[in-house]
Amino acid sequence: MIFIEACFKRQTKYTPTWMMRQAGRYLPEYMEVRRQAGNFLNLCKNPELACEVTLQPIDILDVDAAILFSDILVTPLEMGMDLKFEAGEGPVFTNPLKNEKDLLSLSEDSAKNLTYVYDAIKLIRQRLDKSKALIGFCGSPWTLSTYMIEGRGTKTFAKVKKEVYSNPSFMHKLLQLLSDSIKEYLENQIKAGVNAVMIFDSWASALEEDIFLEFSWSYMNEVASYLKSKYPSIPVILFPKGVSGYLDKIDGNFDVFGVDWSTPMELAKQKLGHKYVLQGNLEPCRLYNKDSIEEGVRKIVDVMGKEGGHIFNLGHGILPDIPVEHAKYFVQLVKELTARS
Amino acid sequence: MIFIEACFKRQTKYTPTWMMRQAGRYLPEYMEVRRQAGNFLNLCKNPELACEVTLQPIDILDVDAAILFSDILVTPLEMGMDLKFEAGEGPVFTNPLKNEKDLLSLSEDSAKNLTYVYDAIKLIRQRLDKSKALIGFCGSPWTLSTYMIEGRGTKTFAKVKKEVYSNPSFMHKLLQLLSDSIKEYLENQIKAGVNAVMIFDSWASALEEDIFLEFSWSYMNEVASYLKSKYPSIPVILFPKGVSGYLDKIDGNFDVFGVDWSTPMELAKQKLGHKYVLQGNLEPCRLYNKDSIEEGVRKIVDVMGKEGGHIFNLGHGILPDIPVEHAKYFVQLVKELTARS
Repeated sequence: MIFIEACFKRQTKYTPTWMMRQAGRYLPEYMEVRRQAGNFLNLCKNPELACEVTLQPIDILDVDAAILFSDILVTPLEMGMDLKFEAGEGPVFTNPLKNEKDLLSLSEDSAKNLTYVYDAIKLIRQRLDKSKALIGFCGSPWTLSTYMIEGRGTKTFAKVKKEVYSNPSFMHKLLQLLSDSIKEYLENQIKAGVNAVMIFDSWASALEEDIFLEFSWSYMNEVASYLKSKYPSIPVILFPKGVSGYLDKIDGNFDVFGVDWSTPMELAKQKLGHKYVLQGNLEPCRLYNKDSIEEGVRKIVDVMGKEGGHIFNLGHGILPDIPVEHAKYFVQLVKELTARS
Repeated sequence: MIFIEACFKRQTKYTPTWMMRQAGRYLPEYMEVRRQAGNFLNLCKNPELACEVTLQPIDILDVDAAILFSDILVTPLEMGMDLKFEAGEGPVFTNPLKNEKDLLSLSEDSAKNLTYVYDAIKLIRQRLDKSKALIGFCGSPWTLSTYMIEGRGTKTFAKVKKEVYSNPSFMHKLLQLLSDSIKEYLENQIKAGVNAVMIFDSWASALEEDIFLEFSWSYMNEVASYLKSKYPSIPVILFPKGVSGYLDKIDGNFDVFGVDWSTPMELAKQKLGHKYVLQGNLEPCRLYNKDSIEEGVRKIVDVMGKEGGHIFNLGHGILPDIPVEHAKYFVQLVKELTARS
């Protein structure tokens, strides 16, 4: 698997590519399955349909890795929180956590309950070409906690950050509970057959440096170390989004650092390229225009070269109104421009 | 005026402080005037009431500068766009711009039409203590353009970034129109009596490095240079939010760089402290807790010292549910901890 080779910095015949949210709404084939499922959560919970949408971008785009179709919020869902996806609103927890007492209502068996995910993984791994990797994933403890406390989308993160600054012991208990859950969850994903795992810290960007290190990074790092010590052959990818000011502090036992589009690839290479393989980071909005795709891909190739240490990706998820042709063009262009001579 | 002295890196007897959104909803006195005005736009358009809320934080908190009460969106409003503030939704333009043809409908007289702002400035400067500075402001061309094209709040900025990547000439025409308008607008504010001006680029964070430099920074810089060449004694403060990955590229003719909370003060000092006075950057959520305020203020004082080159501020606007006592504590603590011995 070229993707796994690249995660370990080995030479590959071109730089492997995949796209965050590649199994998503920009694909008419995905929309059809989504309609069959009735709603988003049904799709996550149906192994047969989740398998189908996971494999679609492999067939359509010829990317080098599949990423499990699921959602980071299945963890709090299976901890017993009531989750709804409201139209135009995104995910909503109807009873967000308010204090330490509320932690008692959370189940410690979420990883055990997530059988539909493991079933999907087994199906996908059976049907996926042997040359393509399957990536499992989860949300970081911090990012999950933001949804569990805010209850719904937020611009300010004021509720959860009020707890961080006023009630840190509540936050640390919640974050430890989440870390323990996702250790077991990712471990179970590995046992079910994923070839690599990725932890998404989408809301790392909500925290100032010291607070990020204490309330987010330390927990992600703990999960990564646990997995690397037990499963050294499984690459661990960490993606804390929006931490370009804190790259000097990024250190730990993992393999690949996901670079978001707001972090210049040159800066990431300078600060982290000697320690980690870098994954990223084409601006997703460049996919609106072919010239912009080419300009962006060339800039990244100029920085990262072709000699390994890089996995191509977008710097954030693909948007729903991107033409499929443009996504194909991106994947093909990367293969062409990074082919080893 | 201690604030103006500090903008020019001169020694002052303590580090001056003010807070972004200091004339705002956390103050019961503000809420009372807002009720009198009926709605937010009426308050912006009424010089007597705008003057009253501008002066409130001076009396209540004893900050060293007042900032004009207004909104960045008065510029597109007076260009002829229909602006509404909807409850729970924020600002909405009912007819967002779609293409170059729509630019023809924009008035070039917005700066001339903003007489209520200049009237407010004259009143404020008459009533404000001579030792306190009055800061005028506007939105950056890029940030204004995001509202004018998206029409309402967005997480992805997909509409405006689609134009950036697919239709750059449309964007450049709009950005030039806005630059010309805000040059005249800030110039008129100076003539009416403000002692310093600040350009808010709140959505700099939406752009990757090269695109930020081309579509946002170059225009802010052009406006700053214009003002500095005509009014060298008026400090110009630039605040591009969320550019910690691009600080190496920040260069131009202005006096003060506003540091948001996601940019570590140490990094800002290292990259920009030799060229510019730095303003910032306490995490606004630290105001939820007195211990967190003290910890945060001490960290910033440790980095910036007491010998000039620094103006204290929050790293973003104060939130509506912060206790007034905590805001007072912040301002007093800065004075104590930065007093020159």
